[in-house]
Amino acid sequence: MIRPEIADLGAYTLKQVEHRIKLNQNENPFELPASVKQDVLDRLARASWSRYPAFVPAEESRRVAVHCGWKPEGTLLGNGSNDLLQLLFMSALERGKTCVISQPTFTLYKILARGLAASVVEVPMTPDFRFDVDRIIEQARKHAAATVVLCSPNNPTGTLLAREDVEAVVQHTDALVVLDEAYVQFAPESLITLLERHDRLVVLQTFSKAMGAAGLRFGYACCQPSLASNLNKLKLPYSINIFTLLAVGVLIDHWPVLKGWIDTIVRERGRVEAALAGMPAVKVYPSGANFLLFESLARTPAEVFAAVLSKGILIRDVSGYPMLERGLRVSIGTPEENTEFIEALREAV
Amino acid sequence: MIRPEIADLGAYTLKQVEHRIKLNQNENPFELPASVKQDVLDRLARASWSRYPAFVPAEESRRVAVHCGWKPEGTLLGNGSNDLLQLLFMSALERGKTCVISQPTFTLYKILARGLAASVVEVPMTPDFRFDVDRIIEQARKHAAATVVLCSPNNPTGTLLAREDVEAVVQHTDALVVLDEAYVQFAPESLITLLERHDRLVVLQTFSKAMGAAGLRFGYACCQPSLASNLNKLKLPYSINIFTLLAVGVLIDHWPVLKGWIDTIVRERGRVEAALAGMPAVKVYPSGANFLLFESLARTPAEVFAAVLSKGILIRDVSGYPMLERGLRVSIGTPEENTEFIEALREAV
Repeated sequence: MIRPEIADLGAYTLKQVEHRIKLNQNENPFELPASVKQDVLDRLARASWSRYPAFVPAEESRRVAVHCGWKPEGTLLGNGSNDLLQLLFMSALERGKTCVISQPTFTLYKILARGLAASVVEVPMTPDFRFDVDRIIEQARKHAAATVVLCSPNNPTGTLLAREDVEAVVQHTDALVVLDEAYVQFAPESLITLLERHDRLVVLQTFSKAMGAAGLRFGYACCQPSLASNLNKLKLPYSINIFTLLAVGVLIDHWPVLKGWIDTIVRERGRVEAALAGMPAVKVYPSGANFLLFESLARTPAEVFAAVLSKGILIRDVSGYPMLERGLRVSIGTPEENTEFIEALREAV
Repeated sequence: MIRPEIADLGAYTLKQVEHRIKLNQNENPFELPASVKQDVLDRLARASWSRYPAFVPAEESRRVAVHCGWKPEGTLLGNGSNDLLQLLFMSALERGKTCVISQPTFTLYKILARGLAASVVEVPMTPDFRFDVDRIIEQARKHAAATVVLCSPNNPTGTLLAREDVEAVVQHTDALVVLDEAYVQFAPESLITLLERHDRLVVLQTFSKAMGAAGLRFGYACCQPSLASNLNKLKLPYSINIFTLLAVGVLIDHWPVLKGWIDTIVRERGRVEAALAGMPAVKVYPSGANFLLFESLARTPAEVFAAVLSKGILIRDVSGYPMLERGLRVSIGTPEENTEFIEALREAV
């Protein structure tokens, strides 16, 4: 009745357990000032809840486009960037087509592509968790891949892709190249300017991480307008509700506040990385995102996870990911949270 | 780069024009009391916006299941019922598979199925707009259809399907049968109890119509738990944002208020239908929903649409739908809005 691939899928799951400090989902640890939230809520009180949102949220698209530095007519808004990733996959993939991804990476790429019955070719990163760009290109050419998904900074390794590497993947393959920049505000630069020259590239960004709005579910896809207008044909109408549409502009208005958070998180990332680098039983990897990947060299990841959790701190055991048998991931929290985490980890390892 | 079917699609569009009275999208004309909205907003002010919603919204599923009379473990929540329709289609359809629909019906079924490269077999309703159930079954068997979509009350005709007819489609085909009950609260009864006996049936309902919450984007799919757990594997995580999750319980708490609106709308539907039936140049069809389909027997639908709009009243010209060359659709509004519409239409035809 439903396709056999679906029954075979492992669902994307997350075990939520009791905790005091939450460092497991790469969320922003800071909360918008109450006055900013109240501004959104006042607008929401005046809005009609019984009416559909605008069919074309033109003003919100324009604000987002200015914010990220791209054209409004090439900017699609979605219910989180996952929603747009699914749209891209539905538009390009089907049984018999191939999606190339690097591993380890965000779990959902494989689930969604397999769910559409597409083949997924997984290219391992190098042993020190850099992208194997030559092999990605080689595999994409070999399988005439319909899509290649690149995540930079990569979840869960924090790895950055160089501009030339993304361009090489676009130039040397015929694929629709999806560049997931969910964590880009924590990195030195976005590669969104590449869109000017490449019409087979799509850049995904989100308000769920740096923008501190995971609860709102808002993401966007940027690409050439001609591609956007085709993707739009398969896009569900009214996918973003009135709350989120109202909040988008207010969040962008408060970019200086958000920018301050990001600076703090980047500074804290350096401090946590240095602390972990000083622990003999830990190997930590450089990150361009708001999290750090580290390996526990003595105790198992499950033991370390449990020991840290016993102090009320929830991190992510990523040892089930390819190549990460000893891996754990920690989101960068507030300075106080990070200090508590460092202490807990020191004891745990 | 993207599949040719996508480029060939006509997008789902809606021309939004200036108006004073909005009777074009089958929305609920009543707005929740300010105190009820404030209750939701107060909860939203206290919630964290920077954190993801719960991975499994168990309490909301339970409330919705009790509300609609089904099992929580067989109730999937979505970002509007369109979101769940897309999930169902992604799970069952692909190139080479067939979806059977009745025509005229809600435009999105065909767009989504064609977008997935599936074949769509369209079965015309009878000339008086009843479902041709025998032909639906015959076509589903002939094409070994993977899905059959039934909409009852049907948009845009208002037609109801009998319980025996839905059962016949399930029993005499091997398809996943999707019963879209978006408008069911305006009809005599829901057929959700059929789920007890049929594991190839899925019932879709929404908060966008009778529940007066189109702006929130909330729908749900009910089916046997075994099917739900498979569908869940392909479902995007966090598809409903914190605003809507908070509002769902509050809306259900206020069901007596909503029920009062529904009674008013059903009564008004009778009054508007009788008024239209009294106009010689109009043919109106019986409806189990919060809208009426009517045909203009003299002037063209475009002329009637424009004449009614000149009074500030926006209705829907559905003459582009199959079989509806002379068709227009009007949503039932408040008593005052309906009276204005009746007067405007009398002049227009």
